[in-house]
Amino acid sequence: MTTPEPGLESPGGLVGSELRDAWPFLDLHEKVEGFRLLAPAEEEDFFLSLDVFAQVELLAGLPPAERQIWMRQLPPDDAADLIQICPEVQRSAYLSLLDEHARKEVVALLAYAEDAAGGLMSPRFARVRPDMTADEAIRYLRRQARERIETIYYIYVLDSAQHLLGVVSFRELFFAQPDLLVSEVMRSEFVKVRADLDQEHVSQIIAEHDLAAVPVVDEQGRMQGIVTVDDIVDVVREEATEDIQKIGGTVALDAPYLQVGLLSMVGKRLPWLSVLFVGQFLTTAAMGYFEGQMARALVLVVFIPLIISSGGNSGAQASTLVIRAMGMGEVRLRDWWQVLRRELGVGLTLGGVLGAIGLVRVLLWPASSVRTQHHEFLLALTVATSLVWIVLWGAVVGAMLPFLLRRLGFDPASASAPFVATLSDVTGIVIYFSVATALLTGTLL
Amino acid sequence: MTTPEPGLESPGGLVGSELRDAWPFLDLHEKVEGFRLLAPAEEEDFFLSLDVFAQVELLAGLPPAERQIWMRQLPPDDAADLIQICPEVQRSAYLSLLDEHARKEVVALLAYAEDAAGGLMSPRFARVRPDMTADEAIRYLRRQARERIETIYYIYVLDSAQHLLGVVSFRELFFAQPDLLVSEVMRSEFVKVRADLDQEHVSQIIAEHDLAAVPVVDEQGRMQGIVTVDDIVDVVREEATEDIQKIGGTVALDAPYLQVGLLSMVGKRLPWLSVLFVGQFLTTAAMGYFEGQMARALVLVVFIPLIISSGGNSGAQASTLVIRAMGMGEVRLRDWWQVLRRELGVGLTLGGVLGAIGLVRVLLWPASSVRTQHHEFLLALTVATSLVWIVLWGAVVGAMLPFLLRRLGFDPASASAPFVATLSDVTGIVIYFSVATALLTGTLL
Repeated sequence: MTTPEPGLESPGGLVGSELRDAWPFLDLHEKVEGFRLLAPAEEEDFFLSLDVFAQVELLAGLPPAERQIWMRQLPPDDAADLIQICPEVQRSAYLSLLDEHARKEVVALLAYAEDAAGGLMSPRFARVRPDMTADEAIRYLRRQARERIETIYYIYVLDSAQHLLGVVSFRELFFAQPDLLVSEVMRSEFVKVRADLDQEHVSQIIAEHDLAAVPVVDEQGRMQGIVTVDDIVDVVREEATEDIQKIGGTVALDAPYLQVGLLSMVGKRLPWLSVLFVGQFLTTAAMGYFEGQMARALVLVVFIPLIISSGGNSGAQASTLVIRAMGMGEVRLRDWWQVLRRELGVGLTLGGVLGAIGLVRVLLWPASSVRTQHHEFLLALTVATSLVWIVLWGAVVGAMLPFLLRRLGFDPASASAPFVATLSDVTGIVIYFSVATALLTGTLL
Repeated sequence: MTTPEPGLESPGGLVGSELRDAWPFLDLHEKVEGFRLLAPAEEEDFFLSLDVFAQVELLAGLPPAERQIWMRQLPPDDAADLIQICPEVQRSAYLSLLDEHARKEVVALLAYAEDAAGGLMSPRFARVRPDMTADEAIRYLRRQARERIETIYYIYVLDSAQHLLGVVSFRELFFAQPDLLVSEVMRSEFVKVRADLDQEHVSQIIAEHDLAAVPVVDEQGRMQGIVTVDDIVDVVREEATEDIQKIGGTVALDAPYLQVGLLSMVGKRLPWLSVLFVGQFLTTAAMGYFEGQMARALVLVVFIPLIISSGGNSGAQASTLVIRAMGMGEVRLRDWWQVLRRELGVGLTLGGVLGAIGLVRVLLWPASSVRTQHHEFLLALTVATSLVWIVLWGAVVGAMLPFLLRRLGFDPASASAPFVATLSDVTGIVIYFSVATALLTGTLL
């Protein structure tokens, strides 16, 4: 991320972009007013560029006749998304605004989970038969209702039972010898996905193969629709946002920050914060357990935050790296052993360096000899040794927790930085005072 | 993120996908061997689907003649990316592998920053003149060298000085009356970006307007190239990865986790970890400053991790939410006041709830009356009051730090969860002991 926006130009789009900027700060009445002030040519672009939450809100403020006009502007996949987030009681009312053909398409899409390929796909793809000539195919495409095709970038070759036989790009067809058969021009090896594949994997596949669209098929290989890359950009952004919010220790907001009300925001943050808080009771209990050692050598207490926070920081690094690598498909469950070995090496090295800095810090800091009772070196060794173990432990726990969560069927991103930090706080106390007991009994303790 | 990959089908791609899976674990020799084992038809797809780091590595293992073949397979924007990451001394060698036309294109692209629109764009767009008829334009497009067009999805209408006058989608042209002029069919209001616009904003614009490609112009409005949505998917994923890694307190890895060597991994993590560690010296100093209070009422010490970690967790939540909202373009610098008001409300509420839990916790926990000297209620009140202030303070600092960093020209994502936690540790100690001094002097203190 970098500094503000230079160089964006959208001539004539002034009113639309102004309205977009002001949007989060307007009440419903002002939104409807603003929308009505747009030039007619701009209204459509503006409406289609709103996210689905804003579309629902705006539609609710419009009279039924206008509502119908705008619902019918939506491509079927977007209409299905919109109906999916409507309150249950309004769904059939919104469905009835569509024309019959679109309604059937949307009902079919609603059968799929919102975050699977089937829930993302559009049924409006360009199709041809394998035994047409290139020339016939182009004329046939020209006859296919204009509004009913999402993209002519790829054309799908289907048999009479809708089985997907091949794919041909419009460019290939356009530049092919006119009398070649479609079956001679098409590719019969291509990437396709099943309707139940989750959207994160769909986006990995589209990114990996640099596709503009990917066909979606059912179990029998029958064509169901296409997922286009512009829908995937939104998916990738959404998924990353969810991961980031979870890593920060929040339930996914599912709406822009400024549009989340106070109570709803508290509701998203309080659960994890309370769980972590109660989790810290364990740290408190551990502290209570070592109260005797603390009373005898109060100087040990001074280093507690320094030491336990290093474990938390090391753990936060490891967990976010592994969570993201899993999200990008770079690391899979079976790679856990390789990751563990890597983190053992990295954790030990990082712990060694921090331990060395800690050692110097304790030796050089002006500490009264009353406090350390002339055992500065032993104290420094205790701090340094604890740091090595705690930083190593943080890295290992942080890296392995996402694997454990995924293995148990949870989202690995729930191994948030605060969660890992809390876990390593309690173990950090235990490690620190165990090392202290081992090294200092008979001197400071 | 969810469970493993069901339903992905890529018939015939078996060997390619096997090689892709094994790739991170192979040495250079094995990679070259594996690549040679691919069916000729698969080699090209495989090579083009590798990321730019893997492409450079593989090319280095091939003999010069093959290297030239593969370099020439790359579209100019990808060739420029590849040359950009090569060691300086090899760049001209790689450039010389290209044919003259491509070399000129690549040299022009190398002039732009890698992460600006100019560094992402392809110069291979479809172009027509405004005074052609639709029919002439289609025939002209057919004549344009096939290999030289990145997409025919959009066609750009240029005057003789290369000024961008309008855009027409291939579909509009294809379905238009054959004798209409291009200038009658084209849109003259459209979104375009300047070559120096950074890639994050380019991706926001493409996502917001659901574009398949966006034209890039210079200051005089002359057409420079196009950025296509498939390049943007990669950008969005990269940017999110960088943000996530920074939020976790790491320098961006810039390569897949499993491909980063031990020393390089330490190099990415040690700097922040050391800075945070040295930062914690402040907390240690604060602890030292309150050593007198600790000696008098050791029971206060037991609650230190509980209290300071709550501030860190609250801060981590706030900072990640604000960082992501900034990255998505939902929150801008001028929104700081609105965010501050929101976080004051949220922080106070969260602090209130945690304070209440803390109050009950201290009152109910079996604590020896020796430790609390019968002042349980005052102790509980101290813990609860501190929690309210510290959680509030964490939320405010966490939310404002990204604004401050962006204002100063730094990346707001550097306000990582560990950074905010460290900041709130030291203030947490000061708040806690200040509250304790105010409430407990004369009783426990």
